[in-house]
Amino acid sequence: MNTLKVALLGCGNVGSQVARILLDDAESLARRAGARLELTGIAVRNVDAPRDVELPRALFTDDAETLVKDADIVIELMGGIEPARSLILRAIEHGASVVSGNKALLAADGPGLYEKAAAANVELYYEAAVAGAIPILRPIQESLAGDRITRVLGIVNGTTNYILDQMDTTGADFADALKAAQALGYAEADPTADVEGLDAAAKGTLLASLAFHTVFPLEAVKCQGITGITAGDIEAARDTGFVIKLLAIAEKQTAKDGTEGVSVRVHPTMLPRTHPLAAVHGAFNAVFVEAENAGELMFYGQGAGGRPTASAVLGDAVTAARRIVSGGRGRTETTGEPLAVLGEDSILTSYYIGIDAADQPGVLAQIAHVFADHGVSIEVMRQTMHTEDPLSLADGSATAELRIVTHRGTELRSPRQWRRSRTWMS
Amino acid sequence: MNTLKVALLGCGNVGSQVARILLDDAESLARRAGARLELTGIAVRNVDAPRDVELPRALFTDDAETLVKDADIVIELMGGIEPARSLILRAIEHGASVVSGNKALLAADGPGLYEKAAAANVELYYEAAVAGAIPILRPIQESLAGDRITRVLGIVNGTTNYILDQMDTTGADFADALKAAQALGYAEADPTADVEGLDAAAKGTLLASLAFHTVFPLEAVKCQGITGITAGDIEAARDTGFVIKLLAIAEKQTAKDGTEGVSVRVHPTMLPRTHPLAAVHGAFNAVFVEAENAGELMFYGQGAGGRPTASAVLGDAVTAARRIVSGGRGRTETTGEPLAVLGEDSILTSYYIGIDAADQPGVLAQIAHVFADHGVSIEVMRQTMHTEDPLSLADGSATAELRIVTHRGTELRSPRQWRRSRTWMS
Repeated sequence: MNTLKVALLGCGNVGSQVARILLDDAESLARRAGARLELTGIAVRNVDAPRDVELPRALFTDDAETLVKDADIVIELMGGIEPARSLILRAIEHGASVVSGNKALLAADGPGLYEKAAAANVELYYEAAVAGAIPILRPIQESLAGDRITRVLGIVNGTTNYILDQMDTTGADFADALKAAQALGYAEADPTADVEGLDAAAKGTLLASLAFHTVFPLEAVKCQGITGITAGDIEAARDTGFVIKLLAIAEKQTAKDGTEGVSVRVHPTMLPRTHPLAAVHGAFNAVFVEAENAGELMFYGQGAGGRPTASAVLGDAVTAARRIVSGGRGRTETTGEPLAVLGEDSILTSYYIGIDAADQPGVLAQIAHVFADHGVSIEVMRQTMHTEDPLSLADGSATAELRIVTHRGTELRSPRQWRRSRTWMS
Repeated sequence: MNTLKVALLGCGNVGSQVARILLDDAESLARRAGARLELTGIAVRNVDAPRDVELPRALFTDDAETLVKDADIVIELMGGIEPARSLILRAIEHGASVVSGNKALLAADGPGLYEKAAAANVELYYEAAVAGAIPILRPIQESLAGDRITRVLGIVNGTTNYILDQMDTTGADFADALKAAQALGYAEADPTADVEGLDAAAKGTLLASLAFHTVFPLEAVKCQGITGITAGDIEAARDTGFVIKLLAIAEKQTAKDGTEGVSVRVHPTMLPRTHPLAAVHGAFNAVFVEAENAGELMFYGQGAGGRPTASAVLGDAVTAARRIVSGGRGRTETTGEPLAVLGEDSILTSYYIGIDAADQPGVLAQIAHVFADHGVSIEVMRQTMHTEDPLSLADGSATAELRIVTHRGTELRSPRQWRRSRTWMS
């Protein structure tokens, strides 16, 4: 099996998780990628700075230039425009594929970088730049490549979604909800980029460019943040069946003069509470896509955080590695995991059982007895009478419907009379 | 620009939409694929049968063998095991890439076919085989390739979700809800494959194999359908905060003897109403993925229907074409669409405006006047008093909060005093 050299630029919240997974999951990643992914170094400004994750000291270097020159895959998680941009260009020149999570750089210069990567026949992936762990760029680029997307609505900033959700659920005003978000680490000490919608605008630009196969400049995004939203606005929205969400909206439309074009805007939006995006709570993200043939699609998940974002970065890295290994068409299916096929004996779950029983003395005890005999422990038992005539109780013609929920266990070794078992709990 | 020959096998509900889009959207598809996708023929059993969509008579043939031999991309939408399997193998032998939506065949023999395609260095894609329009296979195969998926929960059968949703919302019993589904075309005259969970089992098998990088045999799926669910079960679930959904559950777990393995089961499941899958209504599908680093993800959309499924088929076809064109690393970003960048003048939406106004005679009229002067039409206006002291009304110190929703229009050409405009409606 080949070995591919992986250079990591940056070791913050996400970078340190990427390094950890590359080291801890090396074997499994190698099986999937078709090559060993060897972490050759981590470029940081200060090699002695404390890290979230314990990593071998020898991996750290402050010489990013040298590290990049010798890599097959460069993972750029430094953020900011420079030196990230120069290092990515250097990587491409040296024939390395690049994985980046740098939304600021990609929103500013994505198509330019992509052209250079395509010309050099290397990959440039950046799934982590929009909506963290949620696979959204690749589905838009590939799965929806045969459709015409008409609109993309995204909750792509977890900080503002957390703040608005807090205001909606607790009645808090903006300042208090922001403080709560800061206390939990969801908002920065200087929250401007989030609460003014600038972060969402960069992501909206990336989504628009990919969804509409065009180049949308960041400067053309119309952007309004959430700092002006009052508790009264939230309440008024709720009273009328709406919820306020900060959305990035990229839309294909026809201008007054008949020109077909694309607009991108970020602003607080009144969404009907029945809309799937209205159910996106806390710091979660979601992207809602409308396409001519596919109709409505939604992609939901964690939009930030070290581990979720690292998941997206590594998905890109494995995909890039597969392409390098195959020298072309990337193998996307691998079946080499050493996993057994487990049958029902191994399925551990709670069971829900409905029984229609004669409502006679002793029936309940009899049923409870059968459960006990089979070692099945009951968590909840409810009984409903099937009669409107109290007299029928006496003559034994009434039936009782028993609803039983068991504790978690494997499939009941059930005699035939228990086949009415109806639904499980997950 | 090159031309790639596309052969279509089958022309039912999905196939006819695929043919229509290939013909109608030829230019746009060519820009995205980097090659013209020329539909060279449609193989059907009866060339004279009536079709959902009007298509050129000359395209139809009953000689699938000959059609396949000359194609660059073969799209198989015949369903069933044979002759679909033989034709796919023939296509691979001739060096064509294959796109299929045939879940029965892929659940039975997917890894075998995939091996043959990989050996021949051609693509085999089948996004349409699971959850219709929802991009789920590619995200699992590529975006999550660097993570460890621990569980997949899928509402992957629209028929049963519609039936259960009807039972939940209307109190109908199973038989009546099934009749309603049949009347709407959501259920077949013989609904066995859907209501007994067999269709979901095939999809669960495909999801398990891809999610866990292993081969999971269809026969090992533990499967229970929804025919035994009563209106009472649904009611009892609702009373306790649950909803009953038919889920395909693929799970990585450790068996009693310590073996690591995978189980797949399909059965009615009690889901807490707060779970994101609980909000999947009607015939919609959704797949919920739990991964070690990414956490919880959900993919939501239309799981069936001609146009949505055709969207998934064409996404695969364009992706396959890109790989053929590039002879390797597929270009996934294209920016050639003739679309303008539209600014705020073109954004047509309703506006929500909050104004704190002095509660004095004439103020409301004055405000209404300004709206009228600017040609902005008001849809809703609400006023809330900001005082608890009725006397303050007289001295003019009370303020009234006005909440105005405009009709759809472009951005207000607003003088400075209107900058308190706060939220929009989408």
